[in-house]
Parts: sequence; structure tokens; C-alpha cells
Amino acid sequence: MPAAATPLVILGIDPGSVVTGYGVIRMRDVEPVLVTYGAIRPKGSDVIGRVADLYDRVREVIAEFAPGEVAIEEPFSRVNARSAFVLGKAQAAAILAAAHRGIPVFTYSPAEVKQAVTGYGRGSKEQVQEMIRLLLRMPATPQPADAADALAVALCHQAHRRTAALTAGAPTRRNST
Amino acid sequence: MPAAATPLVILGIDPGSVVTGYGVIRMRDVEPVLVTYGAIRPKGSDVIGRVADLYDRVREVIAEFAPGEVAIEEPFSRVNARSAFVLGKAQAAAILAAAHRGIPVFTYSPAEVKQAVTGYGRGSKEQVQEMIRLLLRMPATPQPADAADALAVALCHQAHRRTAALTAGAPTRRNST
Repeated sequence: MPAAATPLVILGIDPGSVVTGYGVIRMRDVEPVLVTYGAIRPKGSDVIGRVADLYDRVREVIAEFAPGEVAIEEPFSRVNARSAFVLGKAQAAAILAAAHRGIPVFTYSPAEVKQAVTGYGRGSKEQVQEMIRLLLRMPATPQPADAADALAVALCHQAHRRTAALTAGAPTRRNST
Repeated sequence: MPAAATPLVILGIDPGSVVTGYGVIRMRDVEPVLVTYGAIRPKGSDVIGRVADLYDRVREVIAEFAPGEVAIEEPFSRVNARSAFVLGKAQAAAILAAAHRGIPVFTYSPAEVKQAVTGYGRGSKEQVQEMIRLLLRMPATPQPADAADALAVALCHQAHRRTAALTAGAPTRRNST
């Protein structure tokens, strides 16, 4: 892999209506290594202020950790329309914060994330968190859960990249609606 | 009203999953006057490209017509979660395009828009379009419907501003989730 000399940094984002989790990993050869993780609680008295604040704070994370690629979870499958509307706004803020820096963005469904991390796509939330802990050699499962979910989507993207490298193709930009 | 010397330009936006309508009006004394209207069909092979393109094109409209305030319709009430997720992203792109230029953004529900334009909030789509035509002295109802809806939200904001001016208060920034 020609990129081995420059370790790739991946930023995973799990957009939420109240809390947006983020997690940063980097590649050491073919192994993922934890860089950081955390949760963003956008400030603002209304949705307009909160969307703008989330955009700004994702940009700050990008500026600090300089990811080469961003992976975002698509959270729409099991929520009502009102929640989906808010989640869509949070996801758009994260997408635009990355796209405006020229960073490639990839999206993954919750099922793809689970499958990549646990191998079957049917793991419980606890199993997913335990796998993240093991894969990243952490002393305890990452908290809050939003940050763990963000690390999971970063690991999912890393697994897709590895598969793509093994099959000699570049990872495909994900289509979603 | 101290702002009378500088006619206020209002940009109305109706975010859509495929087409986002926009409409620009300006105030001549207390009368709204049509400036322009149109529809944006964002280009891009995936949702990431389309969200970024919509953001860019709303910025172009803002750069060309220099609105002092932006009014956006909240479209979530009668759609499924999947549509709401896409609409949320479109609305966020419009919100951020305006907020990043420092332009105040206001949101209105579909019921508020109908009520402001037809007086009762129960008008049919055709009645709303006919009222827009009459209020803006247009020879025919604006097409496509997305552009008509965008002009309606601009007129709704103008009506709220007028009410606020009559009651000696500034229009309140809308809270929504």
C-alpha cells in the first residue's frame, strides 16, 4: 500500500440530535490505533444556532487531528420523522465541515458498522463496545456511547479500506440518499 | 420603520429532497415586490456531493440578491423518516449557507406559511399559489411549485415582520427542532 509511509488518520462521526460523537484512529501499518474520541453537544438557543455550532466544532476537530478521510454513520433507519429531520441536519453539518476542507467523506449504515466491527452485523451494543475496546487496546469501553459509535464507524471505514486494498481497488465513495 | 430607506430583501427557501425552491422579494414601503424566483436541482452522484452543491448554490443566490434575512420552510410534518432525513440535510445546507454569511435565518412551519398567505391556514395549494400571484402582481402563478412555496415563505416572513413592527417588537428568531 503506497500510503503506508504516511499513516492515514480517519475521523468517525456519529451524528445525533443532542450529542454528536467523534472518534479518531490512525493506521500503524495495517493496525488501527486510537488517537482520541469525544462528544460534541452543540450550543445554541435554536436549531439554526446548533447546526452552525456543530459545523464549527467538527471543523475544529478536523483542524486539530487532520484526518485524511471522514466516515459518518447514517442513522435514519429506526427513528421517527421528527428525529430523522434533526439527525439529517446534524449529518449535513458534519458532511459540509469535511467537504469544505476537501476531505473525502464516506457514509455507512448502522448494519454495516456492526458487521465490520463484530463480523456478523448482529452484535449487541455491548458486544460492539467491547470489540472497539479490544481492537483499539483500551483499558475500558469508550464513553459516552456516542463516542464509541463514532470509533466504530471509523473502524468500519478502516475495514472497508483494507478490503478494498486487498482486492486492489480503491474504497468506493458511498452512495446514500 | 427606520429600515424604510433601505428596502429589505427577503430570500425564501423551500428545501426539498430533489428540488429546492427559492424566491426573493423586497419591500417597497410596506408592499412586497417580486425580485426573482427559481428552483435548484443539486448535482452530485451521492448525497454528500448534492448537499455540498446545494450549499454552494444557495450561497450564489445570496451573493447575487444580497438578502437581509432568510426564511426557510420546515417541511417535516407529513413525511416518512427517510424523506425527513434527506429534507433535514437540505435544510441544514440552506441554513449554513445563510448563517456563514452572517444573515439572520427564520424558520416557519407549513401551517404558518399557509396562514400568513391565505389568512386561515387551510387554503388549498392552488389558493396559496393564486394569493402569491395577486400579492406579487404576477401575470401567472409561479412555476415550479417549489419556487411558489419559497415565495410563500418569504411573504410569510414579511407578514411576521410587519406584525412585529406594528406591535413595536422585533421579529423573534424562530425556535424549532
